Amino acid sequence: MFESIFTQVRAQKPLIHCITNYVTVGDVANITLACGASPIMADDIAEVADITAICNALALNIGTLNGRTVESMLAAGLRANQLGHPVVLDPVGAGASPLRTRTAAELIERLDLAVIRGNLSEIKAVAQGGGDTRGVDAAPGDAVTPDNQAEMAAFLKGLAARTGAVIAATGAVDLVADGETCYAIENGCADMGRITGTGCMLTAVIAACVAAHPGRALEAAAAAVAAMGLCGEMARDQAVSRGEGTGSLRVYLMDAMSSLTDQQLAQGVKCRVL
Amino acid sequence: MFESIFTQVRAQKPLIHCITNYVTVGDVANITLACGASPIMADDIAEVADITAICNALALNIGTLNGRTVESMLAAGLRANQLGHPVVLDPVGAGASPLRTRTAAELIERLDLAVIRGNLSEIKAVAQGGGDTRGVDAAPGDAVTPDNQAEMAAFLKGLAARTGAVIAATGAVDLVADGETCYAIENGCADMGRITGTGCMLTAVIAACVAAHPGRALEAAAAAVAAMGLCGEMARDQAVSRGEGTGSLRVYLMDAMSSLTDQQLAQGVKCRVL
Amino acid sequence: MFESIFTQVRAQKPLIHCITNYVTVGDVANITLACGASPIMADDIAEVADITAICNALALNIGTLNGRTVESMLAAGLRANQLGHPVVLDPVGAGASPLRTRTAAELIERLDLAVIRGNLSEIKAVAQGGGDTRGVDAAPGDAVTPDNQAEMAAFLKGLAARTGAVIAATGAVDLVADGETCYAIENGCADMGRITGTGCMLTAVIAACVAAHPGRALEAAAAAVAAMGLCGEMARDQAVSRGEGTGSLRVYLMDAMSSLTDQQLAQGVKCRVL
Repeated sequence: MFESIFTQVRAQKPLIHCITNYVTVGDVANITLACGASPIMADDIAEVADITAICNALALNIGTLNGRTVESMLAAGLRANQLGHPVVLDPVGAGASPLRTRTAAELIERLDLAVIRGNLSEIKAVAQGGGDTRGVDAAPGDAVTPDNQAEMAAFLKGLAARTGAVIAATGAVDLVADGETCYAIENGCADMGRITGTGCMLTAVIAACVAAHPGRALEAAAAAVAAMGLCGEMARDQAVSRGEGTGSLRVYLMDAMSSLTDQQLAQGVKCRVL
Repeated sequence: MFESIFTQVRAQKPLIHCITNYVTVGDVANITLACGASPIMADDIAEVADITAICNALALNIGTLNGRTVESMLAAGLRANQLGHPVVLDPVGAGASPLRTRTAAELIERLDLAVIRGNLSEIKAVAQGGGDTRGVDAAPGDAVTPDNQAEMAAFLKGLAARTGAVIAATGAVDLVADGETCYAIENGCADMGRITGTGCMLTAVIAACVAAHPGRALEAAAAAVAAMGLCGEMARDQAVSRGEGTGSLRVYLMDAMSSLTDQQLAQGVKCRVL
Repeated sequence: MFESIFTQVRAQKPLIHCITNYVTVGDVANITLACGASPIMADDIAEVADITAICNALALNIGTLNGRTVESMLAAGLRANQLGHPVVLDPVGAGASPLRTRTAAELIERLDLAVIRGNLSEIKAVAQGGGDTRGVDAAPGDAVTPDNQAEMAAFLKGLAARTGAVIAATGAVDLVADGETCYAIENGCADMGRITGTGCMLTAVIAACVAAHPGRALEAAAAAVAAMGLCGEMARDQAVSRGEGTGSLRVYLMDAMSSLTDQQLAQGVKCRVL
């Protein structure tokens, strides 16, 4: 599966409009380039619709949102919908504050989203209108286990059917679902949680993959999720072999993505259908 | 001294609400994770009080402040005070513009602060309502020397007594004081001044250490200061041994913090009481 | 040529006021330090004129601009002009949206600029009041070739004469021109386009070099352009020799700039007069 996903991204070099938080924005731009796409960040209401119009996809991330950016996200999203560009939403911290939960809900209600990506607590908050997200991390109890995976898959399929978006709930086990199919992906490593922005970066990579594969959002999102996890594994192996820590891990994650091939992905992916 | 400070941080994983500048915010988030805590950045008035309420400490940093964030810092700080959460202030650039000097003064006047951390020029500006801070760096004349260290210690103790906050004045020699005791810490290296954000990062680490040690703000802040300096020394040694420059130094600083143990700190700390 | 440019920057340590985008701002701060200068980022209208007044140069970058920062750029620029401080403009994404094209035009009209630096599409958009900039990258057709280089040089000299600013149009071949002379610089490597912010970083280095060389903006800007390209080559060689990717390339670029000597630059520069 996932044949030629990144070859296509690198061939098409889709332009990704990102309205994203200022914490991880540089890493988001760099991973977008590393995976073969090209980012442009623009969040002012006076230009977001124009910028979206020259791009191939829109990535919305509500970390560090404010009144100004919420309005811009809506305007850009509506324009992207008009133009048929895929829109990917990262509801960072949904469940951690009413503002974030409410904003995520409004974006989901008013926009046609191709993919929603968050940790399991954020996805639950999005589905239920609230939750107990621990800051920007998943609550300890929100994890996919052998015992609950069937239930979680059904939950995500239901949410996907209801929203019309592919749902990517990431954690130790990542689940990626549309209304009919749910993939469980077990790439990645715990150390990735010790650097900021792996989720935000993944959201941009998803946008790049979806932009390059019209009509194949489920496969494209799942490939992006698997790729990010695999790059994390390669980065951890490199850092461990050199006796280094999380600063180097972050650098090697970018290194891995910048040279990732579809062949590597095919050999490294750990994905099953639930 | 400083036994088990970082072991405690890693065990408790305190959640740190940061309202901080957009220059170094990614590094601040990463070092917060590296030291064992978890960061959440949120600066909009519509959510700061909610976010602070789910966190264990609040770190305020006035680099790149604007009217919007000043209001948010006050709202978050007042809420943190109500809840008894420690609040740490980094008066970046106090003395470099009236806006910064005035904002720092207002935050100090209206909030109960656990720790104020700045370079010596910033701390003087805070104490005197003005100064000659050179941008965001200390003025050349503002340094702790064998000749003035007793005077500086007395000055910081006085400021600590007056504000009720532990004062951490960092430079080639770092001084950390409450109203009664002043530690002089001589860890660190000059090369740390050649990367941006070491001060901002330290402020977040202080917030993490103080959050994990209620009622021990002086020791927690001093341990954080010593740890940051020690990590800088380790990073410099690594970069020098590999013939690398400041880009690598910044990466290795994060590496060092991510694996720092209390035993390493106990062996490496250079601290005396003034 | 370019004798002692960086020696002077390191000796004078000019303070550079940057009003810049939040995507690459940390890298901009770090490269400013790496080249020997000192950055301060401040964008609020309540302090920009004060901050500019204590600095030696002003760097304006319109990536991620908004209504608030446009006003601040004008206020800071007018104050810098009053004081005779060099102002450098980076019209990021001019041509990609009317807001950016219009803002760049307004800054050029109302301010005396020492240098304007952009990719060739941005420079054309600035000159013609529009263009087909591909996001923040040059359009594929906008490149300097043996066939068009004479025409491009004439175009840049004309724009320099009209605006009074040195024009630095960067790409595979960089052109740096005032009204009379155009340098073609062929340092750099394609991989630099795979990390974000090399243009933004260069703009800050130009500001540092120009600040340290009053009355020699053309030479200072050309030296900065050549230095950035040369550092990119050194970084690529390092990354390739270690089998690493773009994450490491970005780190080594900073390493190279932090240790760059004028002797290295003299030996590595590939510059001719058109």
